[in-house]
Amino acid sequence: MARYEEREKRICVLGSTGSIGTQTLEVVRRHRRRFRVTGLTAGSNHRLLIEQARELLPQKVAIGDKGRYREVKEALAGLPVEVLAGEEGILTVAGDPASEMAVVALVGFSGLLPTLTALEAGKEIALANKETIVVAGELVMRKAREKGVTILPVDSEHSAIFQCLMGESRSSVEKIILTASGGPFLHTPAEQLEGVTPREALQHPNWKMGSKITIDSASLMNKGFEVIEARWLFDMPASAIEVVIHPQSVVHSMVQFRDGSVKAQLGDPDMRLPILLALSWPERLESPWGGLDLSRPAELTFLPADKKKFRNLALAYAALERGGNMPCILNAANEVAVEAFLQGRTGFRNMPEIIEQTMERVAYLTHPDLEELLETDREARRVAQALIKP
Amino acid sequence: MARYEEREKRICVLGSTGSIGTQTLEVVRRHRRRFRVTGLTAGSNHRLLIEQARELLPQKVAIGDKGRYREVKEALAGLPVEVLAGEEGILTVAGDPASEMAVVALVGFSGLLPTLTALEAGKEIALANKETIVVAGELVMRKAREKGVTILPVDSEHSAIFQCLMGESRSSVEKIILTASGGPFLHTPAEQLEGVTPREALQHPNWKMGSKITIDSASLMNKGFEVIEARWLFDMPASAIEVVIHPQSVVHSMVQFRDGSVKAQLGDPDMRLPILLALSWPERLESPWGGLDLSRPAELTFLPADKKKFRNLALAYAALERGGNMPCILNAANEVAVEAFLQGRTGFRNMPEIIEQTMERVAYLTHPDLEELLETDREARRVAQALIKP
Repeated sequence: MARYEEREKRICVLGSTGSIGTQTLEVVRRHRRRFRVTGLTAGSNHRLLIEQARELLPQKVAIGDKGRYREVKEALAGLPVEVLAGEEGILTVAGDPASEMAVVALVGFSGLLPTLTALEAGKEIALANKETIVVAGELVMRKAREKGVTILPVDSEHSAIFQCLMGESRSSVEKIILTASGGPFLHTPAEQLEGVTPREALQHPNWKMGSKITIDSASLMNKGFEVIEARWLFDMPASAIEVVIHPQSVVHSMVQFRDGSVKAQLGDPDMRLPILLALSWPERLESPWGGLDLSRPAELTFLPADKKKFRNLALAYAALERGGNMPCILNAANEVAVEAFLQGRTGFRNMPEIIEQTMERVAYLTHPDLEELLETDREARRVAQALIKP
Repeated sequence: MARYEEREKRICVLGSTGSIGTQTLEVVRRHRRRFRVTGLTAGSNHRLLIEQARELLPQKVAIGDKGRYREVKEALAGLPVEVLAGEEGILTVAGDPASEMAVVALVGFSGLLPTLTALEAGKEIALANKETIVVAGELVMRKAREKGVTILPVDSEHSAIFQCLMGESRSSVEKIILTASGGPFLHTPAEQLEGVTPREALQHPNWKMGSKITIDSASLMNKGFEVIEARWLFDMPASAIEVVIHPQSVVHSMVQFRDGSVKAQLGDPDMRLPILLALSWPERLESPWGGLDLSRPAELTFLPADKKKFRNLALAYAALERGGNMPCILNAANEVAVEAFLQGRTGFRNMPEIIEQTMERVAYLTHPDLEELLETDREARRVAQALIKP
């Protein structure tokens, strides 16, 4: 293992001020000799970006919100940190040869271009941004193969699957079993979903996450995205990917093999664990996170997922089966619907309505290229917005 | 995978008429093109041995009970099957170069010499006989290393650990978590254990197994043996092997890694699954066994193991910590105690008494060789027998 022990991995963190970004930096702080941060990017949280840059002294930082450029620039004056701004700035950090791995912790569709840029530069990717794979799984995986680059999942579910697949051959796999907590509305009768508030939907029982993904968890769209992500990351058909409700979020996912054996990965719900693995793989580094306390009685339960009550999950399967630009439409409509829900402009049960209608109305393309995906995304957002009453 | 697909593995089954032996033959029947049986041995069940030999036409069969030799010989007359008898006969089959793998499905201490003989002949070992490793773990593992031979565990727990360790490096492992059903007396108050009958102890909640191992499961000595076995098979210290009660026997065991991640192997409690894996590894062959039905609600529970109530487990840890010939004494005394219990000559709670006193009375040796182990075994049986009222 000496060849790993000695090395310091140079990483850039795209989206360093969000939930995954800050936890990535916690992991880095725990293993300072093993990881060096050479680039950071943030959307609008310039204060935290400045603080992070002062601590970690990356070669480059980028602030997405150009209006904050001057503030960041002045705050870091005199430090050996180059300050960039806007989407070009983020792409510059993503493609910067100073780093060998990009942690993509961006939210939503905004992760796609930086991911492709980092892949183009031949960087390993630690991917926390599932929308990138949802929208453009085929493109992204093709690029990764072309560049001989590994995409390491940061999602706890896909990290679990990745771990269960270690040392196994692809032909041995029968199916992937994604676990879902079921979210805060697992036991809420379907007809009461109409009245739930953003505040209620933001109360995730097990995970502390950003607001977009927390709503997606409550609606099970997050799980739907994960099904699509698993299809691409692990090259499995939709029919071999199953979702099971597991309210305790201790089993992070499972793989069933052709001989009937099932492997599962378990641990406390703590994102630092999959982040650490993605950063350190093929090694495992020591950590105080994760683990299981079996000195106290513990109970793990599993139930089937209700695709009728949580229609987003059924819509995600439908989009995956259809393929082409359909998952892109699904994702765009969902981003619009979630934003509207958080702003109180639409109800919880309206979200799948908006998504489904958008899927019906936007032109379907079998093999979209990047330009067509960007156009699909814009069009789907327009259509979805129009479906929401002002 | 072609190099595996094409090959037919030649195996001998030592103890083919017992529980594991017959299930091994079921596995072989399911994959007739992949496995060819070249040798079979039985202790005394000559009728079943004859039947198996007629079906599978191995090159050699051995019946341990010499008094049955003539019957077997006559029954197989005219068939291309050589008939042997006695311990020498069993050892001949174990060392026969006709097979490349020996499935050691013998019961108790009788597995040791055939295992060493098969190892000496350079055969892969599928080991269902845990006493062999318990008694002579150091010797057996040294021989395996010397011959460059893999020992594949058939125990469901060790098969689970083996699977969880696939693709992982030894330095990543923090601890092994062995699961135990807790047996039929999990909820029986300690003071009521005195009165339990062999019939009650033979009612294992989840597994259908031979009577010796079923009693060992009820007393948790089986789990104690598994702790010792894990120590040798996976080169882990006793302090890094934990036992956890899991009444459903769905999680067959777990491994916790240094980063806090835990991997578990799950499936229906069906021995054909670990047998198949041991026979087919590094490949996984298709099977109808194992699996998990998560379309119905399922509940998995975990609780700490009570070493005060199940003293055998504490005795096993003590024997492992002490090392030398102590696990051999533990095993011999336990075989005597279980036999006496099954015959109604001693009570359930007396078994640990007999074992502990035997451990105190037989001379302790730090680095016993094979001869000393055989002598320890004889002496411990004598001492244990003397402790049992006639």
